[in-house]
Amino acid sequence: MPGYNEDDWLAINTIRCLAPDMVNKANIGHPGAPMSLAAVSHVLFNKFMQFNPENPSWPNRDRFVLSNGHACALQYCLLHMFGYKLSMDDLKQFRQVDSITPGHPEKLDTPGIEVTTGPLGQGFGNAVGLAIAQKHSAAVYNKDGFELFNNHTYCIFGDGCAMEGVASEAASLAGHLQLGNLICIYDDNHISIDGDTAIAFTEDVLKRFEAYGWHTQWVEKGDDDLDAMEAAIQRAKDVTDKPSVIKLTTIIGFGSLKQGTHDVHGSPLKPDDLAQVKKKFGFNPEEFFVVPQKVYDNYGARSKAGAAVEQEWNKLFSSYGEKFSKEHSEIQRVLKKDLPEGWQKCLPTYKPSDPATATRKLSEAVLEAIHDAVPELLSGSADLTGSNNTRWKKATDFQPPSTGLGDWSGRYLRYGVREHGMGAIMNGLAAYGTVIPAAGTFLNFVSYAAGALRLSCLSHERVIWIATHDSIGLGEDGPTHQPIETLAHFRALPNIMVWRPADGNETSAAYYMAFTSKSTPSVLALTRQNLVHLENSVLEKAIKGGYVLHEDKEAQITIIATGSEVSIAVESVKTLKDQGIVARVVSMPCVEVFDAQDKDYRLSVLPDGIPILSFEAMSTLGWEKYSHEQFGLNRFGASGPYKKVYEKFEFTPEGVAKRAKATVDFWKDVKPIRSPINRAFTHVI
Amino acid sequence: MPGYNEDDWLAINTIRCLAPDMVNKANIGHPGAPMSLAAVSHVLFNKFMQFNPENPSWPNRDRFVLSNGHACALQYCLLHMFGYKLSMDDLKQFRQVDSITPGHPEKLDTPGIEVTTGPLGQGFGNAVGLAIAQKHSAAVYNKDGFELFNNHTYCIFGDGCAMEGVASEAASLAGHLQLGNLICIYDDNHISIDGDTAIAFTEDVLKRFEAYGWHTQWVEKGDDDLDAMEAAIQRAKDVTDKPSVIKLTTIIGFGSLKQGTHDVHGSPLKPDDLAQVKKKFGFNPEEFFVVPQKVYDNYGARSKAGAAVEQEWNKLFSSYGEKFSKEHSEIQRVLKKDLPEGWQKCLPTYKPSDPATATRKLSEAVLEAIHDAVPELLSGSADLTGSNNTRWKKATDFQPPSTGLGDWSGRYLRYGVREHGMGAIMNGLAAYGTVIPAAGTFLNFVSYAAGALRLSCLSHERVIWIATHDSIGLGEDGPTHQPIETLAHFRALPNIMVWRPADGNETSAAYYMAFTSKSTPSVLALTRQNLVHLENSVLEKAIKGGYVLHEDKEAQITIIATGSEVSIAVESVKTLKDQGIVARVVSMPCVEVFDAQDKDYRLSVLPDGIPILSFEAMSTLGWEKYSHEQFGLNRFGASGPYKKVYEKFEFTPEGVAKRAKATVDFWKDVKPIRSPINRAFTHVI
Ligand SMILES: [Ca+2]
Ligand SMILES: [Ca+2]
Repeated sequence: MPGYNEDDWLAINTIRCLAPDMVNKANIGHPGAPMSLAAVSHVLFNKFMQFNPENPSWPNRDRFVLSNGHACALQYCLLHMFGYKLSMDDLKQFRQVDSITPGHPEKLDTPGIEVTTGPLGQGFGNAVGLAIAQKHSAAVYNKDGFELFNNHTYCIFGDGCAMEGVASEAASLAGHLQLGNLICIYDDNHISIDGDTAIAFTEDVLKRFEAYGWHTQWVEKGDDDLDAMEAAIQRAKDVTDKPSVIKLTTIIGFGSLKQGTHDVHGSPLKPDDLAQVKKKFGFNPEEFFVVPQKVYDNYGARSKAGAAVEQEWNKLFSSYGEKFSKEHSEIQRVLKKDLPEGWQKCLPTYKPSDPATATRKLSEAVLEAIHDAVPELLSGSADLTGSNNTRWKKATDFQPPSTGLGDWSGRYLRYGVREHGMGAIMNGLAAYGTVIPAAGTFLNFVSYAAGALRLSCLSHERVIWIATHDSIGLGEDGPTHQPIETLAHFRALPNIMVWRPADGNETSAAYYMAFTSKSTPSVLALTRQNLVHLENSVLEKAIKGGYVLHEDKEAQITIIATGSEVSIAVESVKTLKDQGIVARVVSMPCVEVFDAQDKDYRLSVLPDGIPILSFEAMSTLGWEKYSHEQFGLNRFGASGPYKKVYEKFEFTPEGVAKRAKATVDFWKDVKPIRSPINRAFTHVI
Repeated sequence: MPGYNEDDWLAINTIRCLAPDMVNKANIGHPGAPMSLAAVSHVLFNKFMQFNPENPSWPNRDRFVLSNGHACALQYCLLHMFGYKLSMDDLKQFRQVDSITPGHPEKLDTPGIEVTTGPLGQGFGNAVGLAIAQKHSAAVYNKDGFELFNNHTYCIFGDGCAMEGVASEAASLAGHLQLGNLICIYDDNHISIDGDTAIAFTEDVLKRFEAYGWHTQWVEKGDDDLDAMEAAIQRAKDVTDKPSVIKLTTIIGFGSLKQGTHDVHGSPLKPDDLAQVKKKFGFNPEEFFVVPQKVYDNYGARSKAGAAVEQEWNKLFSSYGEKFSKEHSEIQRVLKKDLPEGWQKCLPTYKPSDPATATRKLSEAVLEAIHDAVPELLSGSADLTGSNNTRWKKATDFQPPSTGLGDWSGRYLRYGVREHGMGAIMNGLAAYGTVIPAAGTFLNFVSYAAGALRLSCLSHERVIWIATHDSIGLGEDGPTHQPIETLAHFRALPNIMVWRPADGNETSAAYYMAFTSKSTPSVLALTRQNLVHLENSVLEKAIKGGYVLHEDKEAQITIIATGSEVSIAVESVKTLKDQGIVARVVSMPCVEVFDAQDKDYRLSVLPDGIPILSFEAMSTLGWEKYSHEQFGLNRFGASGPYKKVYEKFEFTPEGVAKRAKATVDFWKDVKPIRSPINRAFTHVI
């Protein structure tokens, strides 16, 4: 093994001075971890990782995830020094509004950032997803002599990530899946924000990972012993049937007068401390933001070597194209996030005479119909396959072949009862670039994954949640399982589509939009109970998010409903007619998509002049945006057969008619009645 | 060790027949786990647990938590057979609307249910909380010769719970805390909903718990070997410096023709299968819902013994009262959830001239001021103590004395970076009955604990989240940490108070309500940044949830704001005045409490006749309920100094004035303008 020399230490010490410079200029941030992780990241980036800063989206690049995202000054330094499009000025703009160096790494802001991290544990889960995607892509696309996909995923995580359940879930699954392409470095610095980890975190982390089935190693001198780091990473690479974790014992804030204490975790160094750090590492304490040319040169050479590797890969990919043109164009297509020509013709369509069916079953019919046409779809469930109906009949499980339960090309992932881990893994799967992840759980338990879901939204990942048992309509499982707040929660997230289809055609519409919206995650809220197929529901209307299902020019009221409540609303029209009230009905499977339509359209659906009543069997919060009055459930549900539960809360045609009548009466004296579509001003975007 | 005889097997076999009878009558439910857990629960309830069915709230009873709550037919059978107020008719009403035997165990519905379980992993976390509360209460109240609190907490959990991150977090903390009073039984049946656990869950669970610092044992014959079960539980009791887990290998659906498969997990047995089960266990296949008198007699004797133990305890408690009258009355008080006379006089009050202060600091001032007066308060943080300001200066940590870091009487819990576990543990702490748990994290990461928070609401636990860094106002940490959807999410939950105080008096008001609302959890959303103390903010007004902060009879518009936005709204009044517009300002620290006021009051705050503009620096979703127009942030935030971030989104007096003017203009032509307080009908409750 080649030794390390002063050039290596120069690079490492550059980071140890540059990162705290960034934090000090911002006057806020985390210098400690960058200083102590400088050594291992130098070894990782300069000896192991393959990447080309000129093309951060080269498909077979090694992936790097900084799960302790608060240490991002480290990552920004590295990206700058290796030649990514991140200037010294960008480093100086650390944590400033509209800079490309925000307080935590965001993949949309900064070239070279693979996934958005910071919320602890998420990056670790993303890394597991990235590793799964690599394994899967290799199995699907690699051919003899054509190792298109063979990259590694490297992840650094700290004590915080190690304590988070989301990372535990992902680690357990990674062990089961024998992800030999995943190498994680645990920054064991004995410090978290509250001080010494002795106060709350005294478990044996390596033993825990062993219990998960990981290969484990310990590097005791994580700030000094570059050879040991290199040897450990190399051994980790050599172990191909297990994920690897390397416990790297470091001294947080290495070099600072306060090293080894939580004082260096989340605050700038004192000026005199920073000065002595620089002296200690051979830099001029009077100078700031310094990268010696030699470091640029050496790192530049490494990057150039990476560029050459990419060139080789490009040639390989070209000749692959000559032999395997179908796969070649498929890879090119999926990397652009395009869908296959005509795929949408596979989406099932229904007529009102078709038998009543639960939307979870209609969702299964979609998956059954499109899985051949859309090979990048990777489905799965958090141990509710039979309830979520997420698996097409001929699916193969994604499993280590040695288990005899499937293989790496399998397109069905058994996530186990690990919803949060599943969400973080899906973000990693989507970030890899060759996969569209979809996975199921009960809608109520998507909430367990709220931390991951909001990052799907923030980082624009096309992730699809197949969220069945979407309301009190699940019946007997009762209030512990019946969503009340859930849709309001998700609808309050930016950049999401929350679909609650009312029948077969709307379910197909939901999938159409979920697949074709390249930068937006979707939650499909689906029923356990059967629903009739509606007159006038067609995909072309449903993909507008809201549309008129039942029109009447004489209408005195508009009733908006979603999902299982739409057919009840339609029935209530007859009940109202008997009472001399004319109603029209709007189906609103996705408010976000409806919001994106032009105002004329929206006003044609929710016109001025008559009051609007919303009807959805859960929290009414947010429906005031579209309606004058709201019928819903602002309490927890009840355990019982679902029809009885619906009756208890008067979610019947008669119950709706009663509220509709009250609405018409109440608004009789107000003129003009304005549709809530009209707004005094538009929101800042 | 005494052996077991036919009486024991009669009781066990009764459960094995009675539980599937319940499921079959309901025609939906989970027979498998009750059948295989019948044996161990018999040993547990009949040999170990101390309880009195006549008084399910006897303070020193042993606690039992069925974390795999879907197996609740088991628990209902046991409660019935031991003589809790749960009749055979109640068992026959399993999973029916308004029965006391819902689909998952709910503490408010059923005598003898300690905590509401079903959402996987939660019960395990609750059990850790119950165990902590016992340790703490013992340390605070027990005296020489007066072991008032020495109960054990027993918890059964399955593969699902074992896979959930929330349980992993709680287990790691329980190991650190050396909770020798906690005994968990892991139902190792190799089956989860998707089939054999080999497909997704192949880790070594006992080794993982060892890594956490638990005492571990394995009972191989979990359906048969009663002696081994008893021995293991006894050994677990004997180990007093570690929590214990017993892996109990069972055959799911023991006795069924489908035993050992997932077919018996979540569906009724086929009638012929049920018949052969009964024959196999010596029951008449023609008869249903049978409990032999002998079983009632034996279990009744056990319950009677428990009642006698309670009687002894009551005597002990009486004589304790003679010696320690202060502690005695304190225990009586806290068990009633009452607060000490006059405690609220400790709450700080402020005047506008007091220095501007962050509400997180004002929250700290409250804790500092009241912690002596309210000894049942147990504070803590998920590793953000210095940021959440959750620790009063002289606090002692709750820690095993052997760590040298604190002791069992300590009132400050270092939860580690384990938000979801913290939420589940707090539910257990509150359920024990002697503690008011409060704990901190960033508001954004309360979302990690969404699964636990909704159970606080459902089971009426007085749990307090000290949720700091409550908006884009946290500044540089950026969008990954800035809540947008969070308050809308929580406000959509039933039975919660979401407080966002604007200054010192409102912060005191929030605490006043959080402590005095015995059956409602609270989330206190607190700023990182300093806020001025407002003219006209007083506790007496703020505890109404919303009130007029700045009145003007000539007002053309009402501006409602919360938290850090209130002072900006107040400033905008001047800006508007310069433009010839008269505005009044409403501060709305808690919409739920405002909703609970009578209509006259609410209309006095939000009157008819003029338009209302809401202003809150996050999702506007839900504000339509209180306002005609909404100013907020329906996108993710930005990383930067908070004032710059506020400017970016025009959250300035000028920005508010601009929207207020647009609102006045827009509503000019509508007459009459109705306050949204007016509704056509009231919601079902
Ligand atoms: Ca650390
Ligand atoms: Ca199981």
